[in-house]
Amino acid sequence: MTPHKPSLDDLVAVLSRTPASLSALLGGLPQALVTATEGGATWSPYDVMGHLIYGERANWIPRARHILAGETRPFEPFDRTAQFNQSQGKPLSELLQTFEGLRRDNMATLLGMNLRETDFDRTGLHPELGEVTLGQLLATWAVHDLDHLGQIARTLAKVHTRAVGPWGRYLSILKDRQPESASPQPGLNRT
Amino acid sequence: MTPHKPSLDDLVAVLSRTPASLSALLGGLPQALVTATEGGATWSPYDVMGHLIYGERANWIPRARHILAGETRPFEPFDRTAQFNQSQGKPLSELLQTFEGLRRDNMATLLGMNLRETDFDRTGLHPELGEVTLGQLLATWAVHDLDHLGQIARTLAKVHTRAVGPWGRYLSILKDRQPESASPQPGLNRT
Repeated sequence: MTPHKPSLDDLVAVLSRTPASLSALLGGLPQALVTATEGGATWSPYDVMGHLIYGERANWIPRARHILAGETRPFEPFDRTAQFNQSQGKPLSELLQTFEGLRRDNMATLLGMNLRETDFDRTGLHPELGEVTLGQLLATWAVHDLDHLGQIARTLAKVHTRAVGPWGRYLSILKDRQPESASPQPGLNRT
Repeated sequence: MTPHKPSLDDLVAVLSRTPASLSALLGGLPQALVTATEGGATWSPYDVMGHLIYGERANWIPRARHILAGETRPFEPFDRTAQFNQSQGKPLSELLQTFEGLRRDNMATLLGMNLRETDFDRTGLHPELGEVTLGQLLATWAVHDLDHLGQIARTLAKVHTRAVGPWGRYLSILKDRQPESASPQPGLNRT
């Protein structure tokens, strides 16, 4: 079966919009909200920003280059908790700016690759998933953004779980990824 | 038990940020993404914008006024599908601007109410939920924003469900609110 190919234009449209959307949502937000989590080992909006920054540096473009270079060894595994070493202590405003700059550069790099439709079928070896295509990598990049945007919305919402009182039964987001129904680290994802 | 009181500053911080975050996310996005749904009777990002606009006009501030006026009759029921009559056909850019303007005015109105902490305990009668407080109404307003932001992220992500290939198993957002595990209208909420 031919893998479903995403449109590069659609992916770039999503990927280019994430930084400004996150900056508008999080910039200047009270610290108690920025550092709130869903409980347990879940991530705060602050943690997510560090994770997104690390991905811009170490994940998406390096893996795209790896595929285009025709490498046969697997991708380097991606460190999903690198942000706890690299970003901690920096103000959120700095993380938002850093993410915006890295994403802008990475979009220029991506467009500079002048990908043709056939390039989307080129393959690389994921250390756990096995053979994956460049098209799948790029679609995953965009969905990964949206997953973390949804996670941030959910985390900010859950701060108010008690405060909404009886309305809680109408607000589905408060019930998403409850610890009892989720993996040990609800709301996290791997790439 | 005393209801948990949210901080008005925190709620205003969230409520004031939603319009710019949504404009950054959706403004100029390809039409196929703007009108995508999660299937069935679920809403597209375009539909959600119409719903948010109608809420600014008919739901939150009118209900807050209703409570502060000491009304004993229930709130007017909120028409959850009003956007299908009122907004259809308008360009998304107009909906984003309209929402931004209405929310700005409503934040000014809310701050102009000069609410004291005791006002948060004042009650009104919800047509289905019974007695609710002003504090619960305001917290619900903010969580309702975040629920729909999460819904938009999820809807845009699901467009790429096939395109991500084997990475799908890592991307939890693609599994949220699957029709088989959700209400007849997954991703919708009532207020």
